[in-house]
Amino acid sequence: MSIEHKHVAEIFPYDGSQIDASWAFREFGIYGSSIITWVGPVNITPDNLKDFADVGLEIKSNYMINFICEFFDCQPANMRIAYLRQRLLVMIFREILFEKGVETKREGDDIFVDGRKLSISIATASLSSMKIHFALNLEDKGTPDDVDTIGLFDITDEDNNQIFDDGNLVDLVNETVDRFILELETIENDISKTNLL
Amino acid sequence: MSIEHKHVAEIFPYDGSQIDASWAFREFGIYGSSIITWVGPVNITPDNLKDFADVGLEIKSNYMINFICEFFDCQPANMRIAYLRQRLLVMIFREILFEKGVETKREGDDIFVDGRKLSISIATASLSSMKIHFALNLEDKGTPDDVDTIGLFDITDEDNNQIFDDGNLVDLVNETVDRFILELETIENDISKTNLL
Amino acid sequence: MSIEHKHVAEIFPYDGSQIDASWAFREFGIYGSSIITWVGPVNITPDNLKDFADVGLEIKSNYMINFICEFFDCQPANMRIAYLRQRLLVMIFREILFEKGVETKREGDDIFVDGRKLSISIATASLSSMKIHFALNLEDKGTPDDVDTIGLFDITDEDNNQIFDDGNLVDLVNETVDRFILELETIENDISKTNLL
Amino acid sequence: MSIEHKHVAEIFPYDGSQIDASWAFREFGIYGSSIITWVGPVNITPDNLKDFADVGLEIKSNYMINFICEFFDCQPANMRIAYLRQRLLVMIFREILFEKGVETKREGDDIFVDGRKLSISIATASLSSMKIHFALNLEDKGTPDDVDTIGLFDITDEDNNQIFDDGNLVDLVNETVDRFILELETIENDISKTNLL
Amino acid sequence: MSIEHKHVAEIFPYDGSQIDASWAFREFGIYGSSIITWVGPVNITPDNLKDFADVGLEIKSNYMINFICEFFDCQPANMRIAYLRQRLLVMIFREILFEKGVETKREGDDIFVDGRKLSISIATASLSSMKIHFALNLEDKGTPDDVDTIGLFDITDEDNNQIFDDGNLVDLVNETVDRFILELETIENDISKTNLL
Amino acid sequence: MSIEHKHVAEIFPYDGSQIDASWAFREFGIYGSSIITWVGPVNITPDNLKDFADVGLEIKSNYMINFICEFFDCQPANMRIAYLRQRLLVMIFREILFEKGVETKREGDDIFVDGRKLSISIATASLSSMKIHFALNLEDKGTPDDVDTIGLFDITDEDNNQIFDDGNLVDLVNETVDRFILELETIENDISKTNLL
Repeated sequence: MSIEHKHVAEIFPYDGSQIDASWAFREFGIYGSSIITWVGPVNITPDNLKDFADVGLEIKSNYMINFICEFFDCQPANMRIAYLRQRLLVMIFREILFEKGVETKREGDDIFVDGRKLSISIATASLSSMKIHFALNLEDKGTPDDVDTIGLFDITDEDNNQIFDDGNLVDLVNETVDRFILELETIENDISKTNLL
Repeated sequence: MSIEHKHVAEIFPYDGSQIDASWAFREFGIYGSSIITWVGPVNITPDNLKDFADVGLEIKSNYMINFICEFFDCQPANMRIAYLRQRLLVMIFREILFEKGVETKREGDDIFVDGRKLSISIATASLSSMKIHFALNLEDKGTPDDVDTIGLFDITDEDNNQIFDDGNLVDLVNETVDRFILELETIENDISKTNLL
Repeated sequence: MSIEHKHVAEIFPYDGSQIDASWAFREFGIYGSSIITWVGPVNITPDNLKDFADVGLEIKSNYMINFICEFFDCQPANMRIAYLRQRLLVMIFREILFEKGVETKREGDDIFVDGRKLSISIATASLSSMKIHFALNLEDKGTPDDVDTIGLFDITDEDNNQIFDDGNLVDLVNETVDRFILELETIENDISKTNLL
Repeated sequence: MSIEHKHVAEIFPYDGSQIDASWAFREFGIYGSSIITWVGPVNITPDNLKDFADVGLEIKSNYMINFICEFFDCQPANMRIAYLRQRLLVMIFREILFEKGVETKREGDDIFVDGRKLSISIATASLSSMKIHFALNLEDKGTPDDVDTIGLFDITDEDNNQIFDDGNLVDLVNETVDRFILELETIENDISKTNLL
Repeated sequence: MSIEHKHVAEIFPYDGSQIDASWAFREFGIYGSSIITWVGPVNITPDNLKDFADVGLEIKSNYMINFICEFFDCQPANMRIAYLRQRLLVMIFREILFEKGVETKREGDDIFVDGRKLSISIATASLSSMKIHFALNLEDKGTPDDVDTIGLFDITDEDNNQIFDDGNLVDLVNETVDRFILELETIENDISKTNLL
Repeated sequence: MSIEHKHVAEIFPYDGSQIDASWAFREFGIYGSSIITWVGPVNITPDNLKDFADVGLEIKSNYMINFICEFFDCQPANMRIAYLRQRLLVMIFREILFEKGVETKREGDDIFVDGRKLSISIATASLSSMKIHFALNLEDKGTPDDVDTIGLFDITDEDNNQIFDDGNLVDLVNETVDRFILELETIENDISKTNLL
């Protein structure tokens, strides 16, 4: 499977419409499976909410790093695979954080640092593609009042130095996407060398 | 989807075992979807017959160009897709022959030149991969007595000159495989730019 | 698989709504898989566009022969199968043209005669059915200004005689549909006589 | 979907090999989905047992009416559909018995008359086809000692007259198969007139 | 598979919106597969009609017992399974009626008593869930003028005593749901003890 | 989805036959999806090897904790899901090790401690079930000479105290299985509250 990663340098908001099918084709002319990443505020309009449990809630943050994945390799699309890949992405991100000395906790698709919520995520699908939105606060600003949140840039090491900043954010994004794509490719390779029952 | 094409220069027989799952991995260490092509005699042992209609028949020829395709992109494998792709391969090969001035007829997956059988083909599958064998006689030798056959090297143009020979066979193979892979990729691209109902 | 073919004698326009799911049932009371053919102008309203690459373009022609296929045999529907069957239909149509002495070129699902575009096509799907629209200009009229088009009725043989006309168009339609349905049935038959891996 | 029903007049035993894939093609040259019915003794050899719960048990009867169904319409085959269709067949048979005044009980795929076991059944599948074996004792002979069985020919009405006999057995078979095929077709028709969510 | 049954004691109308995906989660916070049952009038608004054959017809009744099933176990959802399970539910309900001495006839998913229509039903699906609506008139009131209907409470035994009433309706609902769930579980169990081909 | 966990107290070897379909039913009478865990030596006979990359290699260890998972919830089985769930299991095990202060590295489905291989794993499938074998060395004994391995009981904390031993191994197994099952259930729940595209 081949997946194109495009990191968009300019800032633009995530309002939930970017999870629509074929957004990467319609916006950037990208064919096939893709991962688009960019920095921008998140404020999901009620019409674009994909998690029925969030109906009536605010899903917002002033400043997030966004990942939008779209997979066309499974025809028809399969929500189990969409959510399994979402978990894989979240867990790979945690593995990277851990290697950089950042301890986190995970509940399903949510990552917490010191009990504060770092990330949001949803998976969904149309008949022909599976989509994942995964986003991490960069700062604890503009998030809902009733949720205790933290940003990547708020995390410090034991010497109280900031670990992530504008200078290394794109490296973190690239490392995450590269490992995620590699993992998916490794799974495909594993399938092709497996003797069935 | 990415498909690796490997043309094997040395001659070896097709006995039907090459259609087994993961043959390309076990024989050449190739991961994922692949198309292996080579020249060699065909003599399918009864145990390896995949077409129940051929049980008790001889499927053989002294000298054929063989295509073995294995696709891992559809999980689980789907026999409709296996046979649709087989038809696509056969029809693309006919398109190429036609562009080179060779008129043929087609019945399902069989190609005929002047009423003589040029090709054999079968598709089959395991749970995780779809396989296609497509082979064309190079000469009308060693084929079953009760079938009127023709080889690619037997075909002549209007000036009675041989069209295909050892010198351009690999080009023909490469052109066929390239167009087949391109067609499959174009289909994947078409899916990714289609609005669903 | 059984597929009902209905050729509608009266002229009516294709505006893109005919590709909606269950149109053949809602319009003609036809159950199951079907192919509806008719002559009429094409002018797809923006809301009905299924190809995101065509957004903002005009898809129109004064006079076309239309094929609308709907397949319910695959549950759930599969976009790979939808596009593979579309290619099969387009390639079978080319085979027939060739047998009638008409040389064409093909790029994906587009057919060209002398470098001029003869046809348009799209495939799409809902969860329960796969749809194909395939249409051929009859005359080079009312097509977009920026596309060099040709109609079936514009094609002449080497003696400059028109090959297709109102008198034999329905025969051409029937032959195309019959062969397409036969090919799909042959594939189903091939599946039922194949030994799996 | 089209399903061919063939009732074989001659008697031959069911040893479990008839449930193998493509048996109807290999034995009778039948393409596609089929239902083969015949009268014969049942004695399943251990190698042919498909129900792991029956390992070590005898599955036998001197004289049964056998139904072997093979469905190729679902690609890939689906064991849920195989067992749902098996239940449909068993329940339709019960409906017919009831209309003829015969009260039965059902536990899963087993039918009982007066607490005595009338039928055996199993469903299984390969990647490309789903198979159902359904068989009813005609007489209570040759069945396992530890199971209390009854045959169709043992069933009497309130006046103690035998309801089923050699004279009307084929009618019963035909009625069962006709209704089963009609039900499956009706389901396909229902799909084609359903608006999705 | 685990399926939660919730019988809602209060009366509320079925207007067709309850067949939408995830209604049980949005209304009652129920995760996963569920069966919701309740008594209420039925009057399906045209927008909510799922049966294209009913377009322009009235689907209504003053007083019905409603079953809404949603299954998330099949990913992606499959309309064949949706309708097979619908038939299973309808046939199990008939089995229960028969055990209580009530003779009925069945045509597809419709149940008739003395030639009068007792029930309505539809199945539909989104990509991730399959839904069934099954409802039975309690009284022959408020049903369309051109359909001869009957209610469960209108059915009497041979002594002219009413069989079903408000006092035992919930028992009937529970028995139906329990057997239906048990049957689906038994099918899953059967799959897990079946040797494949 | 419901998954039964059974920890077998007695020691028995893993020879590769336990990965066969329906082993839990045939061995323990367990219906449906299951996870069987036990301690025992591993020595996979060549016939039972499922990883074609391991052909000719020894896969063995004197003393391992074994997990055999079988999932029947996906019909037909899907190798992508099999391997995604395998990765989930491996990553959840790493999360638990990390919480207990044990740093590891992961490459695909392999876990390493201090560059020494701790685990082996494979996923495979038949048409109706997906199987995962995941096993961890308890001691570095009886493993292949050319692989540097480590056992769970060889791991020590910073004070050089052994972290895992016979006293807490079952707790570790239970915690791993409980979290894995919970994660799979959470994914199912997430599906049922997701709005599709």
